[in-house]
Amino acid sequence: MNAPAPTVPRYYESLDFPELWKEFPTASEYQDGVARMPAAELRALQERRFLAQVQRAWQIPFYQRHWSQAGLKPQHIQSLSDLAAIPPFSVHDLRDALARNPPWGDFMGIDPDRDPPMPLVMQTSGGTTGLPRPMLYSPRDREVMNILTGRRLHMQGVRPYDLVQVMLSLGLSNGGFLAREGIWKYTGAVPVMTGTGAVTPTRRQIEIMQTWKTTQLVAFPAYLRHIGLLLRDELHIDPRSLGIKGLIVHLGVDDREELEALWGAPVYDTYGTNECGSLAADCSERTGMHIFEDAFVLEIADPDTLRPVADGERGVILQTTLFKHFAPLIRFNSNDISSIVPGHCPCGGTHRRLSCIFGRADNMVKLRGTNVFPEAIGALVAEHPSSNGEYLCIVDQDATGRDHMTVLVETDLGGRERETMAAQLADRFKEALGVKLAVTTVAPGELDARTGLSSASKVRRLIDNRPKDKR
Amino acid sequence: MNAPAPTVPRYYESLDFPELWKEFPTASEYQDGVARMPAAELRALQERRFLAQVQRAWQIPFYQRHWSQAGLKPQHIQSLSDLAAIPPFSVHDLRDALARNPPWGDFMGIDPDRDPPMPLVMQTSGGTTGLPRPMLYSPRDREVMNILTGRRLHMQGVRPYDLVQVMLSLGLSNGGFLAREGIWKYTGAVPVMTGTGAVTPTRRQIEIMQTWKTTQLVAFPAYLRHIGLLLRDELHIDPRSLGIKGLIVHLGVDDREELEALWGAPVYDTYGTNECGSLAADCSERTGMHIFEDAFVLEIADPDTLRPVADGERGVILQTTLFKHFAPLIRFNSNDISSIVPGHCPCGGTHRRLSCIFGRADNMVKLRGTNVFPEAIGALVAEHPSSNGEYLCIVDQDATGRDHMTVLVETDLGGRERETMAAQLADRFKEALGVKLAVTTVAPGELDARTGLSSASKVRRLIDNRPKDKR
Repeated sequence: MNAPAPTVPRYYESLDFPELWKEFPTASEYQDGVARMPAAELRALQERRFLAQVQRAWQIPFYQRHWSQAGLKPQHIQSLSDLAAIPPFSVHDLRDALARNPPWGDFMGIDPDRDPPMPLVMQTSGGTTGLPRPMLYSPRDREVMNILTGRRLHMQGVRPYDLVQVMLSLGLSNGGFLAREGIWKYTGAVPVMTGTGAVTPTRRQIEIMQTWKTTQLVAFPAYLRHIGLLLRDELHIDPRSLGIKGLIVHLGVDDREELEALWGAPVYDTYGTNECGSLAADCSERTGMHIFEDAFVLEIADPDTLRPVADGERGVILQTTLFKHFAPLIRFNSNDISSIVPGHCPCGGTHRRLSCIFGRADNMVKLRGTNVFPEAIGALVAEHPSSNGEYLCIVDQDATGRDHMTVLVETDLGGRERETMAAQLADRFKEALGVKLAVTTVAPGELDARTGLSSASKVRRLIDNRPKDKR
Repeated sequence: MNAPAPTVPRYYESLDFPELWKEFPTASEYQDGVARMPAAELRALQERRFLAQVQRAWQIPFYQRHWSQAGLKPQHIQSLSDLAAIPPFSVHDLRDALARNPPWGDFMGIDPDRDPPMPLVMQTSGGTTGLPRPMLYSPRDREVMNILTGRRLHMQGVRPYDLVQVMLSLGLSNGGFLAREGIWKYTGAVPVMTGTGAVTPTRRQIEIMQTWKTTQLVAFPAYLRHIGLLLRDELHIDPRSLGIKGLIVHLGVDDREELEALWGAPVYDTYGTNECGSLAADCSERTGMHIFEDAFVLEIADPDTLRPVADGERGVILQTTLFKHFAPLIRFNSNDISSIVPGHCPCGGTHRRLSCIFGRADNMVKLRGTNVFPEAIGALVAEHPSSNGEYLCIVDQDATGRDHMTVLVETDLGGRERETMAAQLADRFKEALGVKLAVTTVAPGELDARTGLSSASKVRRLIDNRPKDKR
């Protein structure tokens, strides 16, 4: 006896789109509606969605195990105010779940042997070391992510017939594909998928911007600076003459004003992750990134105790999703450090704002009692008039067990001027960070291969040579 | 007075999907239906769609100009049998249209200043020299392309929950994105987008196949051979032990049997282009690539006269689309050389079949009166037991104006054995092609940088050093 032929599912019949757009409005419907929802109404919406996510999580082996080990029982979670009772988890727990049950782990909530087929798509974490962590998305999960991405691009000024040049890595990680889907499906603009410099060399990227009249650029700030300086200093073309309307980036603590002056265009900051796409984004006022609070509950917590901190104080972001069917995240410790901006945004939006992403808690280096973030060093490097903004931090341990950081910075200065620049930067670091760092100057482009600036999706700013158990 | 805010279109409301799936059925609905349609019924369907395409083309400046210059008038085209009266056009005409009206040319049939916005996506030609040629797709154009891609993958054995590893270039060109959309939206399988070796190095590609248990590989044959040999000869892993169910390729005249033996999996050939996606594909019988004749009319024509040739004879493919709203193609000379397979396929499908793509007319080298295709040389190289299949043809002109071709081939043989191999290949070329070629042996991997094997979407097999006007 043959088994019956499997049904082949089609994406567009697996979702009720009009219903989904009522739940998660797009573009101006969002901006004029949910974005301005009174706080109490928003809280009620969050609570309803949160309880549904918790119920879903109880069906998934990962949460059953993790929560039961902490003594959590279903009756303990009756409302959003019980959130603090739920034990957070981290990427280490996800890695452990992958190892327990390869290749998908037991946190997706999908069983291919039992569940009827549905259209699935997969992306992964960056995977800078080892195999990247895979994440599957159900049609509803992915579509909400596309809606949120479309929303943020609309908030950031992308309009029908705009040409948006996406210079992000295209492959297993999420950034490039998600931008393409959000632009194409929900803004009326046209995605121009050039990928990183490894796929489309920088001079070809420039040729495309000029010939096709690209209106927005999506890229990492370091790459935008790299292109801008190449245009200005080598090709003798003023980047501002290209008529770019917006620079859409993950800004972190990079120098916004410098980039804006270079390109003559506003910088729009975004907070996005591989697990759930766009979580927060600058509106046209650029006073902080509005969290999509109909789709997420974000808490800022002390990195050590994981207890919530007050608005304005820095801590790690704990993510709770309000829409995911596969791998819902409930108090996921993202390791990203940010703070909530107190007060209201002039745009009239009621959703809370993240200040910026200051860095990653696991990228933080403790040097003689002081917390040092490579990102903060980068911000100081970029301030120096003879710097092109490129830097790399290297941490070593000497025979006595003492930790040292050397900061390599690129400059086209020569001889004595180089030494002066190094001394100025060392002074500035000591003054701003309270710790002594060594500074070494190198020629422009020399760090490229080690940071991955032209070829990788994320630029590497820290090399930690200390033994793993002594950090 | 402010202009009213532009409406932001959403992809899924710009199409009537159930209606579209009736016109262009997907997966098994296609295989059990339109694929077996009696010839007369299929012809009637083609005729109806063809006349609608011609009507659309008369609205587009490119066709107005091109057809009017040839004296064509609307009343001349009354049925599909009038096809031969329409003047073909080539990529040169498209380039000319782009130059006339940058950046989009005048063949799209879209006017951003007048037409209401709709969700658009853009991909380009490969762009090996100069800026790639852009092509825009309306929602209907793209969705039909996705349906056809899903169809072909279903014909080629892709089933729900399969993992399909796509090792094609991801960027401006179409191949990788189209595969992702077709797999995801219309097969129930999961696309695993690793890109070329430039994005995911070959050893990481292998690690992913093994760990995630990939079921199908989508790549160029040269890259599949490269991976298979690396597995077998360097990692000492039998590629057949990975359990790959199918190799989905643009085969051309590459050696099917050798690839199938290496991987222990069937090879499925496909004919696809940037302008309109998947045009024809092998079914499970693999007796030639069934043309999707509800979406295309393909003619095989003499490359010089452009007059149709008989079934079984070789010529260039003239493409006529039956579904495109933007840039419909009517008798587009693709430059791809193929032939129609006479007779019927055991699968019961009624649509005609292409034998294979023998090469490109513009890649053909005339050497002392003989037509030589690099692809045919590659097929002979692959037959040699000491070859890894890698080769590169270089054409030069000596002072007397005489053309010479040198074929570089990779081998790990040394000393005298190398010389013997070179002599054997030179004899084989003379015998099979009727022309004398020089042969030079080089070490494995040595051609990589010049052919682009590990990094590019299309592998380069011909370097023509002759002056452009003397070819």
